[in-house]
Amino acid sequence: MNNRAELRSLIETANQTVLKTFQDSRPVWFDVRPAIEALPGMTRDTILHAGPPIEWSRMCEPQRSGVICAALFEGLADSESEAVAKIEAGDICLAPCHEHGAVGGMAGITSASSALAMVRDEASGAVGCSQLYQGPRGQLRSRDDYDREAARQWRWLAEVLGPVLQAAVRASGGIDVKHITAKALQMGDECHNRNSAASALLLMEILPWALRARMDPASLRDSLAYLTGAEQFSLCVSMAAAKATADAASGVPHSTIVTTLSRNGTDFGIRVSGLGDTWFTAPANEVDGLLFSAEWNADDTVPDMGDSAIMETVGLGGHVQAAAPVLQQFVGGSFQRAVQLTEEMRQITVGALQDYRIPNLDFAPAPAATDIRHVVRTGTTPIIDTAIAHRKGGVIGAGQTRAPLDCFKKALRAFFDTYVPATEP
Amino acid sequence: MNNRAELRSLIETANQTVLKTFQDSRPVWFDVRPAIEALPGMTRDTILHAGPPIEWSRMCEPQRSGVICAALFEGLADSESEAVAKIEAGDICLAPCHEHGAVGGMAGITSASSALAMVRDEASGAVGCSQLYQGPRGQLRSRDDYDREAARQWRWLAEVLGPVLQAAVRASGGIDVKHITAKALQMGDECHNRNSAASALLLMEILPWALRARMDPASLRDSLAYLTGAEQFSLCVSMAAAKATADAASGVPHSTIVTTLSRNGTDFGIRVSGLGDTWFTAPANEVDGLLFSAEWNADDTVPDMGDSAIMETVGLGGHVQAAAPVLQQFVGGSFQRAVQLTEEMRQITVGALQDYRIPNLDFAPAPAATDIRHVVRTGTTPIIDTAIAHRKGGVIGAGQTRAPLDCFKKALRAFFDTYVPATEP
Repeated sequence: MNNRAELRSLIETANQTVLKTFQDSRPVWFDVRPAIEALPGMTRDTILHAGPPIEWSRMCEPQRSGVICAALFEGLADSESEAVAKIEAGDICLAPCHEHGAVGGMAGITSASSALAMVRDEASGAVGCSQLYQGPRGQLRSRDDYDREAARQWRWLAEVLGPVLQAAVRASGGIDVKHITAKALQMGDECHNRNSAASALLLMEILPWALRARMDPASLRDSLAYLTGAEQFSLCVSMAAAKATADAASGVPHSTIVTTLSRNGTDFGIRVSGLGDTWFTAPANEVDGLLFSAEWNADDTVPDMGDSAIMETVGLGGHVQAAAPVLQQFVGGSFQRAVQLTEEMRQITVGALQDYRIPNLDFAPAPAATDIRHVVRTGTTPIIDTAIAHRKGGVIGAGQTRAPLDCFKKALRAFFDTYVPATEP
Repeated sequence: MNNRAELRSLIETANQTVLKTFQDSRPVWFDVRPAIEALPGMTRDTILHAGPPIEWSRMCEPQRSGVICAALFEGLADSESEAVAKIEAGDICLAPCHEHGAVGGMAGITSASSALAMVRDEASGAVGCSQLYQGPRGQLRSRDDYDREAARQWRWLAEVLGPVLQAAVRASGGIDVKHITAKALQMGDECHNRNSAASALLLMEILPWALRARMDPASLRDSLAYLTGAEQFSLCVSMAAAKATADAASGVPHSTIVTTLSRNGTDFGIRVSGLGDTWFTAPANEVDGLLFSAEWNADDTVPDMGDSAIMETVGLGGHVQAAAPVLQQFVGGSFQRAVQLTEEMRQITVGALQDYRIPNLDFAPAPAATDIRHVVRTGTTPIIDTAIAHRKGGVIGAGQTRAPLDCFKKALRAFFDTYVPATEP
């Protein structure tokens, strides 16, 4: 009993440490670099994907197709069959973005030459990276699409947009992502499915620096025109920021706070601060939402996919649903429903972010730091705002889903396996 | 009694016509030109001001100071005393912006060379104009400030920003203001005191065109840098759009709908569709709000001033307060208070704008078309979001106020004087 009380006390202290790391985090977008330069442990023959680790044979179709395209793009194989053979032989290495300091939206395919936004949490020094938003043109649908246009778009991101953003961001001395996030929450974004405000604010921040950079005028014009039309652009920067914050909060002994929520279209995986790098997985749920065209139906979709749930991990996205009632239009909800979801998230979190306020809740702070104990006790899992992927790849809708409860149950069991013996001699 | 019923029926029909004009309005920003070219009846020796007509002797201090500075700026006088003498002699003409197809924020000082945003309501053909947002540097505080920097800023607006925007807007073929307004309402703007979203969206719309225009690179860079820092910029375009809409709705016989709400710092004036160009005035109220620095107190302020209440005239600003709960921070209010204000405005309006939705009210449309009968019957007058002016000029705060009830009472009396004899033989 005494040991139980002691453990509880250790947990509370550890969780407050994690919460404080979330609160104190000061993410600054400081660079754009190719993955091979940006990511620790990255190699030319590594291809990263979203979600927890997964064997090639269990990978969902869009992720497999993305990996093959990346192998072709990087010159690791000359044909689809050669790519598959090399993957199966282990000559092409697959690994989660999350295990290389990165996060990737949807399939999350990140290879050596992918241009990445790099964000540093100035409070902790932790760095998070994310592939640049690939735009509607980059919405890979199939191998044919790859041959037709995705390869061109990837090259453009690496060779045109990447260098323009690199020059602008470096010249700026760093873009304060926390400031933009706080403002965006007052402008109808929850910074996962809705990024209209943050994308505009980000563009306005970098514009003066981009104009001053010594860039080829056509590249500059193309890049800025692309950004003015890319309402979801800021998500890649927000995700990199959230990754830096979450990594800074990882590895705090005894903490029961979630530091990763992530999906690969097959499994949903979580990691917990006090349990280090261990993944706890369960089958990914389907996404409830709206498909953007009548040509598709539920059979065309894959389950929940992408590292973008890093936003919910740090208390944004679904956690601040009340800030973005517009998103309820995807799920036939209402303003009241949005408010209710944020209040629900308060039941499974241990604190709130004073810098991130929700005007529609009279400026109440965003609920943050999800505690696996609260999730298991209440049976309420994080609500995830997310896009919906076509099973051949590409974004075809948007909506909401839940993290599966089993991940949290497994993690809580492991937590007691890890910590209870140590406190009961 | 029969005649009363007949009049009531004529009023209802006329008011529906006005409401439909508001609803159908499709404002497009199509040009930027100097006032002398843009405004009907404008002359080199005319200086326009905000609000209803007012004699020089009754003008509030910031407006008088603005008029004198404009006279010096336009070369109409070489000294303050010469300017005053010419104004008193009628050699310099003063007139309301509103009577020349324009609107002006705060003091509203508009002279021949002022660069104006020009917006056309494509549904009616009506054109509205507004001086460009003058920026913090242009916040005229005193004659000293004028000599030191306001004159330079005015010149920059006329000679640099004006031409850059002219080139960009012309190249674009016209910027759809309605689309931007609708989006901004989903992003926390009410499009009067808060314009952060609309300003960003507007910049994103014109940016690709500005980059393509054959402009001097330094002018372009300066202009874009200015716009990225000007969160209130879009108000001048929104006001020009609202002016076009309101003018299109003016002069409908029998209509009891307000088509002008405006203030000159001394008087609040309204005009009513069925009563043409006649002004009905009452003393302007003080503004309840927050001053931006502790150096000022209530003694430094002037009463409600500016043509910006054209936004409330067409159903935005205070009418959609619920869309911008952030503004309640200026007045110590709450989200509920913001919602309540919008619901209050429903009591004095005859309809709503289906294209302008408020997410926080489950996408309810904006209440619009204020009926002087409802105002007098309920005693509820329009709530006006507004900036607060220093008595020496310059914006020093922001908050809310009410239109004075007496304007509406006078207008209703005049309405019956005009229409009842005609229906009671």
